[in-house]
Amino acid sequence: MDQGRTRQERKADTLKLLEHEVHIWLATATDDQHAHLIPLTFYWDGQQLTLAMVEPQQTADNLRRTGWARGALGSTRDVVIVEGPVTFTPVDEIDPTIGDALRARWTAPIDFRTLPGFVFVHLHPQRIQAYRPGYVERTDRTLMRHGRWLV
Amino acid sequence: MDQGRTRQERKADTLKLLEHEVHIWLATATDDQHAHLIPLTFYWDGQQLTLAMVEPQQTADNLRRTGWARGALGSTRDVVIVEGPVTFTPVDEIDPTIGDALRARWTAPIDFRTLPGFVFVHLHPQRIQAYRPGYVERTDRTLMRHGRWLV
Repeated sequence: MDQGRTRQERKADTLKLLEHEVHIWLATATDDQHAHLIPLTFYWDGQQLTLAMVEPQQTADNLRRTGWARGALGSTRDVVIVEGPVTFTPVDEIDPTIGDALRARWTAPIDFRTLPGFVFVHLHPQRIQAYRPGYVERTDRTLMRHGRWLV
Repeated sequence: MDQGRTRQERKADTLKLLEHEVHIWLATATDDQHAHLIPLTFYWDGQQLTLAMVEPQQTADNLRRTGWARGALGSTRDVVIVEGPVTFTPVDEIDPTIGDALRARWTAPIDFRTLPGFVFVHLHPQRIQAYRPGYVERTDRTLMRHGRWLV
């Protein structure tokens, strides 16, 4: 009988997704009890997810006000949830290694760093969960808590 | 040059996703300025998306309190966003056609309608958007506004 993946296996799969996925579904809270949700390009450097976006815009406004985001990687059949506080870095202060890596994942023919209103956002994972929906992997979903890997 | 899909093409693609996709990423607002996000099984009957969930649970609690959800279908490269108010139906009052259709999409080996705490939730789309991220489909994203298809 399928027992589901171990936490070790889920961590290995999660790190692969963080390294190779290009987009994250990012959910943020509005100021009127609604949630916003859009896909955004991201880059994982082993510690944080870095995204770029233009301001003003719903997601950026929500992140400025709430300082928090919850995102999903992978598919609805192989889920990774990443949640934590966010910080901002102006374009002219970004680490060039991170800026270049994110630029390389961007499909647009222009460099967003030259556009007015762009800003970098870092999501610092406090909680990471990984599971395949259904009964088999209903336990052991949490891989990181309070910013520390449990495995 | 690729001009992106017309609104008519996007509506046809969106209806296909609504009919054939099994899961939706559902984003809801918590009461402390965070957003929640999980994948849920749904069924589209041509008017509304019906989901089933157990109470109490974060998503159900948020939906009861805010009465609103924003969900995403498809992939981060071929996005459909559905947003609108939600209503609840107790298990013993659900239209059997809808209950059976949702049950058929559920992977668990048991019928959720027999479990304590389960409730049906209907998402009534007020706004639907469809786009492939990037510059080509940056316009004409909205297909439904105030509950009416624009095409």
